[in-house]
Amino acid sequence: MTSKSAAVVERVTNGIEPPSETWRARARERLDSLTKPLGSLGRLEDLAAQIVSIRQDKAGDTVSKAVYIFAADHGIVAEGVSAYPREVTHQMVLNFLAQGAAINVLARLHHVHLQVVDVGVDAGLEGAPGLLHRKVARGTRNMLHEPAMSEEQLAQALTIGMDLAADAARAGHSFLAIGEMGIGNTTSASAITCALTGASSDLATGRGTGLDAEAHARKVAVVRAVGERHFGAAGQPSAALDILRCLGGLEIAAMTGMVLSAARHKLVIVADGFISTAAAAIAAAIEPKVGGYLIAGHCSQEPGHKLLLDYLALTPLLTLDMRLGEGTGAVLAMPILESAICLYQQMATFASAGVSGPSA
Amino acid sequence: MTSKSAAVVERVTNGIEPPSETWRARARERLDSLTKPLGSLGRLEDLAAQIVSIRQDKAGDTVSKAVYIFAADHGIVAEGVSAYPREVTHQMVLNFLAQGAAINVLARLHHVHLQVVDVGVDAGLEGAPGLLHRKVARGTRNMLHEPAMSEEQLAQALTIGMDLAADAARAGHSFLAIGEMGIGNTTSASAITCALTGASSDLATGRGTGLDAEAHARKVAVVRAVGERHFGAAGQPSAALDILRCLGGLEIAAMTGMVLSAARHKLVIVADGFISTAAAAIAAAIEPKVGGYLIAGHCSQEPGHKLLLDYLALTPLLTLDMRLGEGTGAVLAMPILESAICLYQQMATFASAGVSGPSA
Repeated sequence: MTSKSAAVVERVTNGIEPPSETWRARARERLDSLTKPLGSLGRLEDLAAQIVSIRQDKAGDTVSKAVYIFAADHGIVAEGVSAYPREVTHQMVLNFLAQGAAINVLARLHHVHLQVVDVGVDAGLEGAPGLLHRKVARGTRNMLHEPAMSEEQLAQALTIGMDLAADAARAGHSFLAIGEMGIGNTTSASAITCALTGASSDLATGRGTGLDAEAHARKVAVVRAVGERHFGAAGQPSAALDILRCLGGLEIAAMTGMVLSAARHKLVIVADGFISTAAAAIAAAIEPKVGGYLIAGHCSQEPGHKLLLDYLALTPLLTLDMRLGEGTGAVLAMPILESAICLYQQMATFASAGVSGPSA
Repeated sequence: MTSKSAAVVERVTNGIEPPSETWRARARERLDSLTKPLGSLGRLEDLAAQIVSIRQDKAGDTVSKAVYIFAADHGIVAEGVSAYPREVTHQMVLNFLAQGAAINVLARLHHVHLQVVDVGVDAGLEGAPGLLHRKVARGTRNMLHEPAMSEEQLAQALTIGMDLAADAARAGHSFLAIGEMGIGNTTSASAITCALTGASSDLATGRGTGLDAEAHARKVAVVRAVGERHFGAAGQPSAALDILRCLGGLEIAAMTGMVLSAARHKLVIVADGFISTAAAAIAAAIEPKVGGYLIAGHCSQEPGHKLLLDYLALTPLLTLDMRLGEGTGAVLAMPILESAICLYQQMATFASAGVSGPSA
């Protein structure tokens, strides 16, 4: 019997095609004709070719950028795994809506359309203006004792992300960044990293928002215990959707749905830090064709992030020792992506500019 | 007797103060009060603090960005050190003026004011509109046989850069990027790198715009011979201005002048690739206080660039395997710099946003 969540993701995974190699080759040919030494734009040329392979006949269009922040609370915070109290999730959502957070500044500066989505904040936010109200539950359950979410909740969170990606495609966005806010969610991402990659909990678990050594040791133990609770000491491989349901994060599930649907709609997907990359990794485990649509905005200071980037075979664009989340690293990478495609679209060719090629 | 060029640079070096540690400490305090975990913006926080230490009472102003491209030809191309013919310098200047080059696309996209300066192109460009006409000579002499420029020419090129930095300060620019165009100028930068750092020519010499193995070996030999010609086989340390005069590049001398004067005027200076960093390194050798004003936009694929960044103790913001010059790597880093100072200026504090700090 197919689970409800599996049926939900199949609605989009069946329609995902890999990026077009024909368009990529065409892009390479054009890049080689532009007024610069061959290959001298380095990774910008790879990025431009990737964007063209994804956007295809829309590669010449003006770029439109969006970032979605999914906010949710986590039952696991009862185990003392975070430096900040649980109510900060709610407070930071209000800060997003008041334009005071880092992501607001960056999105405004770089002309990235920002949407904040409540998928599971443990607070009544019904009256908050500017917020997308998609609350599935007031946070996940404590995954140390039971699955973080029910099959029904998982299906619902996945659907939310999928529907928003479809909306973004309809609105004409071409680059889609995923971000999150949720006190406790690095613990969830660490547990997912262990389950997906087989890494040990001490390698996959960092200091989050700033734990001291003792609290960090506790977090490592919690991540190990959570994995054993759900998947046994042997850490046998499990289905990606089971990992997501047990180790949760309603915001991680929503981002997973968004990644799958964004690939279906041929959008360029920019992952942010550790947590959003955990969602991208789950999506790629569900449907490997997603990989060609992904770009790693940056490499965070969380040690598990590097494990996930290796798992996805992604090289991050920026390494600035950030560890904030909210989509900040993804949005900071947007000007680089936009540069790559604008160079492709707008530079003169050797022929059109009358510039000589290399000496014979 | 003080040389003419030494007298010229003393006009600004006497006025250079180090960036303000008082302002930097004040910036750190504010950064720690903003709604994010302590230090979670990583290098963006260091950048913001550096910018505030430079801009001081102007740190709250709207950012205004400029890039100057200095173009010049090189006598050393007679030795077959470049993959492209000499006339490409001239042709690319026309491409800049026609808005067709990579730097035009990037400057337009990221709102960076672009100025192209002819300091030594071997072509009559008198009628070209939009160009700053500051031609010192129709290229340098062949430094394999004689100093690349005369004392008089050196003083003139330094003055051009110094005056333009003063103009930029008057025009209200806060971030200044330096870029260049000059077929043959990686050879000049390699020779300068050897003279400044003591590196051997094989370590400091790359493939430029795309030399094959045989041409690269010839270039390595030329760089070695040039060093021996001017400074003896022992490679004894020489005065920075002598290195600049003998190993030249009129564009490198102009950029050196610009860096010195920009520091004098408390502008944030963004170096681009190998050649512009060679100019920054000469400037820092002349006056070490310049170092605090410098930011390395990126790390180029030219091996000598890394040697110069180490010499200057600079960590590049971007590593995207670019090797184009024109200021492209510096302009691509501008959105990161602007992000850093905008976060500093615009984010809410914990107190103003009503967000809880870490748990006790």
